[in-house]
This record gives sequence, C-alpha cells and structure tokens, in this order.
Amino acid sequence: MAMVESAVTAPRSRENTRRKLLDAAAQVFAEVGLAAASVEAVCDRAGFTRGAFYSNFDSKDELFLELAGRVTQGRVEAVTARVAELECDGAFASSQTDVFEILDQVLDVSADDRLGVLLMSEIRIHALRSPEMAAAYLEQEAEMQRSVAQIVADIGRAKGITFRVSALEAARVMLLVWEGSAVRAAIAGENADRIHRATSTELALVAQLVIDGPATTYDEDEEE
Amino acid sequence: MAMVESAVTAPRSRENTRRKLLDAAAQVFAEVGLAAASVEAVCDRAGFTRGAFYSNFDSKDELFLELAGRVTQGRVEAVTARVAELECDGAFASSQTDVFEILDQVLDVSADDRLGVLLMSEIRIHALRSPEMAAAYLEQEAEMQRSVAQIVADIGRAKGITFRVSALEAARVMLLVWEGSAVRAAIAGENADRIHRATSTELALVAQLVIDGPATTYDEDEEE
Repeated sequence: MAMVESAVTAPRSRENTRRKLLDAAAQVFAEVGLAAASVEAVCDRAGFTRGAFYSNFDSKDELFLELAGRVTQGRVEAVTARVAELECDGAFASSQTDVFEILDQVLDVSADDRLGVLLMSEIRIHALRSPEMAAAYLEQEAEMQRSVAQIVADIGRAKGITFRVSALEAARVMLLVWEGSAVRAAIAGENADRIHRATSTELALVAQLVIDGPATTYDEDEEE
Repeated sequence: MAMVESAVTAPRSRENTRRKLLDAAAQVFAEVGLAAASVEAVCDRAGFTRGAFYSNFDSKDELFLELAGRVTQGRVEAVTARVAELECDGAFASSQTDVFEILDQVLDVSADDRLGVLLMSEIRIHALRSPEMAAAYLEQEAEMQRSVAQIVADIGRAKGITFRVSALEAARVMLLVWEGSAVRAAIAGENADRIHRATSTELALVAQLVIDGPATTYDEDEEE
C-alpha cells in the first residue's frame, strides 16, 4: 500500500518541482535573457537546490527548450479553448458581439504582459539560432494561424461577412501585427493593460482592413 | 607640417578601427547574441588587440549601443535615400511602376538577410530591457514610419489612389508585417533571397488591403 502511494505521489511531486523550476526560469530568462541566466539564479528563484535542478534537467538549455514548448503550446491551447468557449456562448452568431471584440477576446488569452513579451522574444531569438527550437516554434505558429483562421472563417459564416483576403492570410497578418505591436508597447515601457490596449487598437485596424465593405478612405491631403 | 598631417590622419585611422570593430561586433552579436559575445571574440574577428578595443570603447555595452544606433540610423537613411532616388526617376508618377514594386524597392534597402534579422532581433530584445536603447529604438522606428508614410502618401497623390486607413496607419502595419515575416523566414532557415521573397509577398498582401478599390473577396466556403 505504501509502495502504491509513493508510486502515485512521487511523479506528482516531481512534476510539481519541474513546474516550479519552469516558472522560476520563465521569470529569470525574461528578466536577463537566456545567456545571462544562471542555473543558480533559477534555483534561488524557485527555492530549490542545484541537486533538485539537475535531477530534473540535464542543462539550462534543456529546461529552456521545455519551457519554450510549454509556453508556445499553452498559447495555442488557450486560443483554441477560448474559441470553443465563445462558440458555446453563441458569440459568433449573436448580432450583439462585434467582430473586433471576438478577435480581441481570443488573442487576449495569450500572455501579452511585459514578461510574456520578453519570454516570446527570447524564444524567437533562440529559434533563429537553433534548428530544434525553430522547428517547434514554426509548428506552434502554424497551429496559431490555423486556429485564428478558423475563427475568422467562423465569424464570416455566422455574420455573413466576406473578406478581402483568405482567412489564413488574414490570420497571418493579424498575428504578425498583434505580436509586433505588443513588442513595441513593451519597449515603450507600457504595463500589461496598456500593452493590451495597443495590440487591440492595431488588431481592430487590421480587422477593418481585411473585412470587405465600406471603409473610411483617406486622401493624401488629410495626411499633411 | 608633420603635426598637421598627423592631426588629419589620426582621427581617420581611429574611425577606421572603430568601424572595423563595429563590423566585427555586428557579426559576433548576430551569431551568438550580445550576452554570450566576448570582447575577445570581437577583437579576434576584427584582427585587433584588446588594447585597441578599450582605447575605442569603454565596454561591450557601449559598443553595442553605438552599433545599434548606426544600424537603425542606417536603415532610416537608406530608406529615405531610396525614396529620393525613386522620386528623381519619376517612379511615383510613371504608370509603368506599380505600387507594390515601389514599396518593395524601398523596403528592400533595409538589410533583411539572416545576419540583419538576428542583429535587429538582438537590438529589440535589449531595447526591452534598457531604457536608453528603448528610446533610441522607438525614435528610429518613428522615423521609419514617417518615411514610409510619406512614400504611401506620395504614391497615392501621384497615382490617384485612395487608402482605407491613414498613410501613417498603413506604414505602421506594413513595417510590422515586413519585420515579422522577415523574422519568420529567417527562423525557417531561408537565405537572403527567400527572406526577401517572403517579405515581398506579405508586403504586397498588406498593400492590397490598404488600397481602396475592388479586392478579391473570399467567402467562408472557399476556406475549407
């Protein structure tokens, strides 16, 4: 009986330790970057010894790879779960909910606070240098694009909206603009609320561009 | 006379040394990142001693800050010079040159090879952590946006095109999409040619979205 119990609790406690180390690493990596982050700093933040670290991870790089996988997978799952939730609520079909609001609610689940922006930036820069990380990153991104494209197509169907580009193209532009504007706002030192407001504004602009229909037009003289 | 000569050549040779150190640093920083790059590695690459390094820069960070300033300023100058060149050639007014081609030629001057993408990514991630770098980065970006907005407005005037958003909004979306797609293509391991092709494709898509007029529309059934 005791053996059964330990067989059940040991993996749980191990998973708990790994999770705490990953959470601590997310903070430390975001703060100082992967290269400058030491295993010691991660252990200190998590409240564990180096022994506990090395019984869970072979190296800092292995931990970063797992963290990056969890973060990017977490973003995809959060977005797809939010889509399912909105579909259940009938948000797509309701005439009360506007398109920008739905997209905003969907993308809002992805962490766009300063720490989240820093961590995703670290992940991207390491994906530029490591083929293993690159493959994981590109796969996650393709999944995100498909999820957002699905939402765009669902909204179009439910609301009788036609788009000026394909749903996948719209999703691609939206995700690039959303991510780029989050980075900009974080560079400008904005807090999570204001980062979110900045990305919402840009996202609404792109939504306006991809939706077919009368748009505010500008001529060059208004620009000056 | 000899004194006058040395007064003239010394600053030149000094500037030459600085430039070589900056060029070497650009390569080393792009390859391994700022944190992992050592002063020694930069000196080795440039073929200088550490003495030569420290008589030009107080620290690695000072060198990175100057490099970042030169790179971002260089991008702005290249874009504005290209605009002036195209205006001289009458490209904006010519009915032969299409809008996408002009934008493509303008943004093409900004380095979008792998090394350029890596260096800009390093600059952005350090702008996220250093207020000094952030200020310089945001200023450069605002200048880029104004330059591209000017081109958009000029094209609109010359070709009688109206836009669905303001020229500044169009420029903002274009620059975010251009930069994001360059990073994507570099993560996918593409070479400079293919990175350029990827950014051109996305840029043409955004240009199509911001220009008022009949667009290919898609309905949801074509998506599946």
